[in-house]
Amino acid sequence: MSDDNPSRKMILTLSGGVGGAKLAAGLAAVLPPQELAVVCNTGDDFEHLGLPISPDLDTVIYTLGGRSNTAQGWGLADESWRVIGALADLGGDTWFRLGDLDIATHLYRLSRRRAGGSLTDITAELCAGYGVRHPVWPMTDDPVRTMVQVPSGPLQGELAFQHYFVRERCQPPVSAFRFNGIEHARPQPRMMELLAGGKLGAVVICPSNPFVSVDPIIRLPGLRDGLRASGVPVIAVSPIVGGRAIKGPAAKMMQELGMPVTARAVAGYYGDLLDGFVIDHADAADAAAIESLGPVVQVTRTVMTGARERMALARDVLRFAATLGR
Amino acid sequence: MSDDNPSRKMILTLSGGVGGAKLAAGLAAVLPPQELAVVCNTGDDFEHLGLPISPDLDTVIYTLGGRSNTAQGWGLADESWRVIGALADLGGDTWFRLGDLDIATHLYRLSRRRAGGSLTDITAELCAGYGVRHPVWPMTDDPVRTMVQVPSGPLQGELAFQHYFVRERCQPPVSAFRFNGIEHARPQPRMMELLAGGKLGAVVICPSNPFVSVDPIIRLPGLRDGLRASGVPVIAVSPIVGGRAIKGPAAKMMQELGMPVTARAVAGYYGDLLDGFVIDHADAADAAAIESLGPVVQVTRTVMTGARERMALARDVLRFAATLGR
Repeated sequence: MSDDNPSRKMILTLSGGVGGAKLAAGLAAVLPPQELAVVCNTGDDFEHLGLPISPDLDTVIYTLGGRSNTAQGWGLADESWRVIGALADLGGDTWFRLGDLDIATHLYRLSRRRAGGSLTDITAELCAGYGVRHPVWPMTDDPVRTMVQVPSGPLQGELAFQHYFVRERCQPPVSAFRFNGIEHARPQPRMMELLAGGKLGAVVICPSNPFVSVDPIIRLPGLRDGLRASGVPVIAVSPIVGGRAIKGPAAKMMQELGMPVTARAVAGYYGDLLDGFVIDHADAADAAAIESLGPVVQVTRTVMTGARERMALARDVLRFAATLGR
Repeated sequence: MSDDNPSRKMILTLSGGVGGAKLAAGLAAVLPPQELAVVCNTGDDFEHLGLPISPDLDTVIYTLGGRSNTAQGWGLADESWRVIGALADLGGDTWFRLGDLDIATHLYRLSRRRAGGSLTDITAELCAGYGVRHPVWPMTDDPVRTMVQVPSGPLQGELAFQHYFVRERCQPPVSAFRFNGIEHARPQPRMMELLAGGKLGAVVICPSNPFVSVDPIIRLPGLRDGLRASGVPVIAVSPIVGGRAIKGPAAKMMQELGMPVTARAVAGYYGDLLDGFVIDHADAADAAAIESLGPVVQVTRTVMTGARERMALARDVLRFAATLGR
């Protein structure tokens, strides 16, 4: 693996759910555990039926553990639905589809939370249980809850993220997001140590949703300053390819927020956070315009249809990072 | 059904788990919903993995709903074990075997508890969900927790009931029981209304464990007085037949408590609570000795091997009740 990361310095990657998990898995496939740490958004976390659910952490763990249901696009392979079926018969709340194997994850987390375990510790235990060798860290152990502002329509007001995302299938137009509790949230200490400690080689922002996956992380108190002070290149991979989001509501949100649905608009949104920006060949014509905003641009294939593409993109990103410096 | 309960007055039955549920199901098979109420022990209730579990309530609901796993002797028919299997793979706590369908019950209860529902309300909802038409009430909505005193051996001290019962399989010898919280527990208001209201015909104490199923109920503040003041006959069915317990650790406990393992000793233990005592033909020779303790004795077949025997015993108990008065 030395070819992929000659400096042997750590790569810190910031990830949301499915899209981010793919690049994280690609990086995990080409880097040893001591050279990669994955920090996950927890703004999507919520309590459902009394179970503490961390959708992005779980997606990353399942994906890195090789257990994700690639056909379905979320959840675990070989899943079954006995519990939720029985709960439906009882008249219980079933809008959030919990599989039996997935419920085991949430019950494990619930029982460990009741015993006083931190989300960071529990995540490490789940990683061990699912055979994930690379460290996966929640962005914070404190509760941060993404709230979606819906300016009009029957659901006008503020929706908890999973209600917007799963129950309403991202249908209501949005106007803004709020991260409840973020001002009191302590950023993941291991991440802050890594940013401060000189062992870091680069930060990679996965092709996750800028508004609801990446923003909750980088808006944690002190994180933007910590990224800047680290002195390492910060690289983002565009979640927008050819005017569309590969996965999820990013494109729809950009439209509703009055932004052009382009990779360039994503780069503009991240602003001076970025040293490098990775875009797909489909957007190659915008490279110069994006570079005029600040970041160095790398054009490559960013659509990860399988393990091969994940690893190829991971290697491209690592090579790109090696060429950048502040 | 008029033949079985000509007075049309309510029957209040006090039940623990499996043995009690069988007689409750027999009574439910011969009485309409407006003539029977089942009060369940909740001293066995506990939290496991963060799930609120009410073993006796669930057993009664599953049995009355025709959903119990008669081959296994506990839990639900057509059960599966996907969640607990996955939890075992994660290194989670699996000494209490929770089936997938059973977990749906506990998740329903958890979610409704989090929403502020009382155990009484949730029990009524679960009854509706499982097709139970007769009212089933927890003995109290307040937490009462049966603690088992273990006088010697490696586990010397006090064990929570399910730890003793399931994890330790009732192996440690016991010396006493304590019902944590009982002094502050408010007895089920519907039960107290029934005892006070003149609509009650009889109280039937199921053939449940006297120490850990029936005692938590009858030791609730005011209940013994309420039973006495009700003026209706109180009848118990012996859980001991021919010197053995049909189910569970009652016989073993009697030995360890220094009592003879006999139906007569059970009658003596209940003392002046009883107006009538139902024993099996196997113990017919003790009838006179038991009557010398106070209660009128009815000898019949008390072992319920199937639905037919449950109904027959229920009819015997109802006929017996009709002959008794205070």
